[in-house]
Amino acid sequence: MVGTGPGPIDLMAQRAIDAIKKAQAVAGYRTYLDLISGLLAPGQEIIGSGMMQEVERCQKALELAEQGKYVALVCGGDPGIYAMAGLVFELARVNGTHPEIEIIPGISALNACAALLGAPLMHDFAAISLSDLLTPWKVIEKRLRLAAEADFVIALYNPASKRRQGHLKRARDIILEHRRPETPAGIVTGAFRQGQSIRLASLEGLTGDNHGVNMHSTVIIGNSRSFTWNGHMITPRGYEKKYSYWQS
Amino acid sequence: MVGTGPGPIDLMAQRAIDAIKKAQAVAGYRTYLDLISGLLAPGQEIIGSGMMQEVERCQKALELAEQGKYVALVCGGDPGIYAMAGLVFELARVNGTHPEIEIIPGISALNACAALLGAPLMHDFAAISLSDLLTPWKVIEKRLRLAAEADFVIALYNPASKRRQGHLKRARDIILEHRRPETPAGIVTGAFRQGQSIRLASLEGLTGDNHGVNMHSTVIIGNSRSFTWNGHMITPRGYEKKYSYWQS
Repeated sequence: MVGTGPGPIDLMAQRAIDAIKKAQAVAGYRTYLDLISGLLAPGQEIIGSGMMQEVERCQKALELAEQGKYVALVCGGDPGIYAMAGLVFELARVNGTHPEIEIIPGISALNACAALLGAPLMHDFAAISLSDLLTPWKVIEKRLRLAAEADFVIALYNPASKRRQGHLKRARDIILEHRRPETPAGIVTGAFRQGQSIRLASLEGLTGDNHGVNMHSTVIIGNSRSFTWNGHMITPRGYEKKYSYWQS
Repeated sequence: MVGTGPGPIDLMAQRAIDAIKKAQAVAGYRTYLDLISGLLAPGQEIIGSGMMQEVERCQKALELAEQGKYVALVCGGDPGIYAMAGLVFELARVNGTHPEIEIIPGISALNACAALLGAPLMHDFAAISLSDLLTPWKVIEKRLRLAAEADFVIALYNPASKRRQGHLKRARDIILEHRRPETPAGIVTGAFRQGQSIRLASLEGLTGDNHGVNMHSTVIIGNSRSFTWNGHMITPRGYEKKYSYWQS
């Protein structure tokens, strides 16, 4: 299982590149295969597929691995964060097979978006997906409420899709119960890819309709101490309390 | 600001390697400079330092950048996750200067440890540092309590150091108020480095004295649905509810 990071080859680890080049078969969602097409060789079996076919794709990759093939299952970002790593283990368990599985981590959306926004994740944070395809919305709401109360920086995965337009606004409303309306928020769409967009907003302004938020976006909402400076979003770690020369 | 990932050069992005090679000055905590010593060239100014001198080191890097030098400030993992990115912006703000700052993200401890444990971060999670050097312990406790109640997978950074021995057990006690004693937990020390250790335990067993937990460890505690299988720690995403063929 290979993490391809945000997109550009030069943000992938060499270990990930080597695994893809060495593979007899490469499986992955078509968007991610396109991003790494320069690494693929003519002799390789390619198992691409559209969205919503994750189970079939992982099952196919497992079957090939069980036949003794070296298979690279590629994931955008990191296979271990909201991606395919769990599904592969779950399927192997159901199948009753024990293929050798190695996970090569990648730079996930969290890391990529934080790097483009400034330094929003300097303190404790929570990652919450707003997709209710596999999780009841009630569970998502509860997590939003408690994360807001705990003053976590909050990274929202899957803030919107064509079918889910109102979730970001609903999340904003819940978080606003515990946090100032002017709390900084960052919206990154297509991080490190062509057409990348980086926007700063306030929590109050996250109504979802005016920031081009879509399925390629990640939203990061600051904690009670986050601030913006010079176009960057920053969460302080607490050094200013420790170092007297700070004020000098 | 360059993320060097967990340690091995082949888990760094090429963009990070290039930035270090191109730099006129390279600053960083000595442990991380040692890990990338193969990338350093004789002509480069090296600003190494021991722990607890982060402020001075970042200040020096900023001064050189303000003089027009290309400076690589290296961080283990990702500069954007509990690392130096925030401090650099905060110092630049205090200094009143505006050097050009670029952050090249890396594979953080979260990603590295999850990859070695299996697939613990397939669902919503919280990252909490147990270090009370810069954060009051009361705040940490509150976050632990709410994260446990929210059923987040919980990644604990800085679970122990020579001076902080009891924090992991105190965190365990709080989380146990909301989660089963047999909840799986994973302890990874020195991820992807020589002497790396990967251990599975139960939440109840996280007493901190028998797992060799130290400042190079990260601990991941599962949510209410996490399980272990074949030596791996897995948090299900929820596919089994969606796909009827799961049970076949």
